[in-house]
Amino acid sequence: MTPDAALDALLAHHRKIDAMEGVLGLLAWDQETQMPPKGAAQRAEQRGAVAGALHALRTDPRIGDWLADAEAGGHPAPVRADLAEARRGWERAAKAPEALAVALARETSAAHVIWAAAKAAGDPAAFVPALGGVLTLRREEAAAVAEGTDLSPYDALLQDYEPGARAEALAPMFARLREGVVDLLGRCEGARRAPGLIGDFPAPSQMALARRLATVCGYDWEAGRLDLAVHPFCAGSFGDVRISSRVADADPLENAYAVMHETGHALYEQGLPEDLRGRPTGTHASMGLHESQSRFWENHVGRSRPAAPWMLGELRAAFGAIGIDDPEALFRAVNRVEDGFVRTAADELQYDLHILMRFDLERALVAGDLAPEDLEGAWNDRFEADFGRRPPHPGLGWLQDVHWSEGLIGYFPTYTLGNVAAAALAAAMRRDLPEVEAGWSEGDFAPALGWMREKVHARARSVPAGEILSDACGGPVDEGPLLAHLEAKFAD
Amino acid sequence: MTPDAALDALLAHHRKIDAMEGVLGLLAWDQETQMPPKGAAQRAEQRGAVAGALHALRTDPRIGDWLADAEAGGHPAPVRADLAEARRGWERAAKAPEALAVALARETSAAHVIWAAAKAAGDPAAFVPALGGVLTLRREEAAAVAEGTDLSPYDALLQDYEPGARAEALAPMFARLREGVVDLLGRCEGARRAPGLIGDFPAPSQMALARRLATVCGYDWEAGRLDLAVHPFCAGSFGDVRISSRVADADPLENAYAVMHETGHALYEQGLPEDLRGRPTGTHASMGLHESQSRFWENHVGRSRPAAPWMLGELRAAFGAIGIDDPEALFRAVNRVEDGFVRTAADELQYDLHILMRFDLERALVAGDLAPEDLEGAWNDRFEADFGRRPPHPGLGWLQDVHWSEGLIGYFPTYTLGNVAAAALAAAMRRDLPEVEAGWSEGDFAPALGWMREKVHARARSVPAGEILSDACGGPVDEGPLLAHLEAKFAD
Repeated sequence: MTPDAALDALLAHHRKIDAMEGVLGLLAWDQETQMPPKGAAQRAEQRGAVAGALHALRTDPRIGDWLADAEAGGHPAPVRADLAEARRGWERAAKAPEALAVALARETSAAHVIWAAAKAAGDPAAFVPALGGVLTLRREEAAAVAEGTDLSPYDALLQDYEPGARAEALAPMFARLREGVVDLLGRCEGARRAPGLIGDFPAPSQMALARRLATVCGYDWEAGRLDLAVHPFCAGSFGDVRISSRVADADPLENAYAVMHETGHALYEQGLPEDLRGRPTGTHASMGLHESQSRFWENHVGRSRPAAPWMLGELRAAFGAIGIDDPEALFRAVNRVEDGFVRTAADELQYDLHILMRFDLERALVAGDLAPEDLEGAWNDRFEADFGRRPPHPGLGWLQDVHWSEGLIGYFPTYTLGNVAAAALAAAMRRDLPEVEAGWSEGDFAPALGWMREKVHARARSVPAGEILSDACGGPVDEGPLLAHLEAKFAD
Repeated sequence: MTPDAALDALLAHHRKIDAMEGVLGLLAWDQETQMPPKGAAQRAEQRGAVAGALHALRTDPRIGDWLADAEAGGHPAPVRADLAEARRGWERAAKAPEALAVALARETSAAHVIWAAAKAAGDPAAFVPALGGVLTLRREEAAAVAEGTDLSPYDALLQDYEPGARAEALAPMFARLREGVVDLLGRCEGARRAPGLIGDFPAPSQMALARRLATVCGYDWEAGRLDLAVHPFCAGSFGDVRISSRVADADPLENAYAVMHETGHALYEQGLPEDLRGRPTGTHASMGLHESQSRFWENHVGRSRPAAPWMLGELRAAFGAIGIDDPEALFRAVNRVEDGFVRTAADELQYDLHILMRFDLERALVAGDLAPEDLEGAWNDRFEADFGRRPPHPGLGWLQDVHWSEGLIGYFPTYTLGNVAAAALAAAMRRDLPEVEAGWSEGDFAPALGWMREKVHARARSVPAGEILSDACGGPVDEGPLLAHLEAKFAD
């Protein structure tokens, strides 16, 4: 086949892969937001059937031929990037045997149920062997993927979420970040004493506020929608990017900042360039970069001092009196530091400590240096060392997260990579546009979104996430901007 | 392969087909009820990818081998029915070449857009060639499906919706029905003079009423949901059966009876026996039988005299005063006969006349006795002959329905088959359970639903629809009960 014909065939096939991935995403979105309870058994079969069709598309042996023929051509850089990304996906899919994929789907599905029951009952014993089973299969998968490369088993898993990242390179930066945050945690008495909101926060007003916040940030309602879900998330891409949130009667901030967070994810997806839709590079660059977008809008905009007057106005418009009268008091209220045990409820200061311990623990699990039955003790010891308190029970400790039961190993570090990147991008944005925050007090975020569109969204996966970041920030990115940001916000 | 092993393989494969059909249905449901406008392009690719995967599953060459091996075994009747249905599906799929399926998908997709524009602009000229294109491809498909059978081309298409039906056998019954309805239409002055509802019908109250009506009829909310859609429909099966309706501010009856109608479809799907889920016979017996269920609940229950006191109570509870005080007046209001041109807005009396003319016209189109450019004239002449008035413009005439633009030819007769069957089932139910209507004035429909569950729902597709009907009704079914029902309701 000529290189051009092979390229056309490859791209046509990739549009099918992309479409089928979208279908799988929609099935999950529907399950979380719309599906009636008795639909669960059918939905499991539907997801299985689509996953099977997707696997068949991804491992279609013609892909190897098309790639070889297309790569023989002299293509411009964007096409070479598409070919490289297509090759990465093809080799990843081809390396994991189908029997292993089927076994993993079955094992994680069972482990998830066991985990939920163990967490609810406060009885972790049943989950230990289930986690061991998932771990064994994921290690097997890691070995298959790593074969013929210089990847460690953990790095082989990490590639699915953060292409190009290496744990060995992350570890020193993460260690410095940990040291800095633990130190700062001892110097934030003021942030612990900030008063919270007092008022009446009915659910309809919370959802109206949620819609308003997303709108002001630039979310395109013609290309998305907002629903309620048990765990807020963002699903979809390009012209169909759906966000969800949840309402807690006593705390309007949980919903407000969940929506700011998901809106950040959604702005990235809605901002991908339409001409790349369906192409291998027509997607987010990495999960870390994705998280940088959610964290930028949640923490660097939504919980910032410059935007506090705007947020105060929005909260009062939604709820009337909220017990807080001036922007500085609101800034302090939304950045209060509290003793807690749960990652998803953690404040911005302590959040990364949660991630860094999971990163170390899951690396030890994959390396075989830590056995599942010793995880609870290791978790509690590490938690006490970093946070100065010990989880009272496993539900607030090592059983709190869904990730490991679902086989998501190598995913946690992308959260902290996102925080590191968000701070670096925010600092670079202020350098490029010194007046960017001037309009935030009135909810004018268009310049900030414009900068992010150009520097991050428009590039999609045309180059590695690290290159997008260093191009945007004028050099390699490390924990420095994040620590400076946390210091400015939380230090007494 | 042993017969049992082949059967197992066949049934496992059919579960995948069934699941993928469910996915295709969910993509359509989401598109009509949830999808944001800018998601249309991606959705088209998603539906195409799933349709491709479904086609591959249906035409998997292993099916032929499994069928041959499994059929060699001595199986009980239910398994033989599964094998027969699997063979029917396999032969139907194998006979239509993939290139034709692709061409039809493309042509109907384009024709649908042209039809919508032609209807909106009141300019049918553009749609004539598009209809011609669709017709050519469907005739080609019909010829492929009919090959090696005694089916006429039209019957070959009809099989997809009404397995086992033959136009030649339907035509005489339909002619008698037409004659009876046209005659009755001249004897219903009283039904034309009934006053309508007067009151305030806010959308939230209409939707609350819709939920209430579905609940009272027996709809299981744990296995479904209600949403708004431009055109009300029912989607899904077994544990996930979703209904939709629409709200017209001035007319609460449109929404109420649309919901009764879709609830009837949904009760059938929710009532299919769980042990047949995923099997070839684990589905509705035919579209006509499906329509009998919707029409039974809409017309034989919802618009009946025995249920009028209950419906009056529901309407007053939802809206307060509605300008009607007694059940007999409500019975007359919901059965008012009005001059109109649109099938979907037609009263129960005139509805079948709409269908019968479409049945004759589309048979003439398929046979080549009527050219698309002559359709408008033929439509208007026939309409005038049956209804006594002439459509003022094509949007109220031959352009009113979406069906032909989508290639749905052979589908229309199932509507009237549904009306015929609903009346026959209602009459049989009263014979079996003489007191069945006694509780309707108080909304007790459990005995009626129980009878329908046993006689229709529980049998799924284990035998042909005609056999289910004649078993339920104690003999072959014809237009007699429907004409008697219309006579009783509408004659002066």
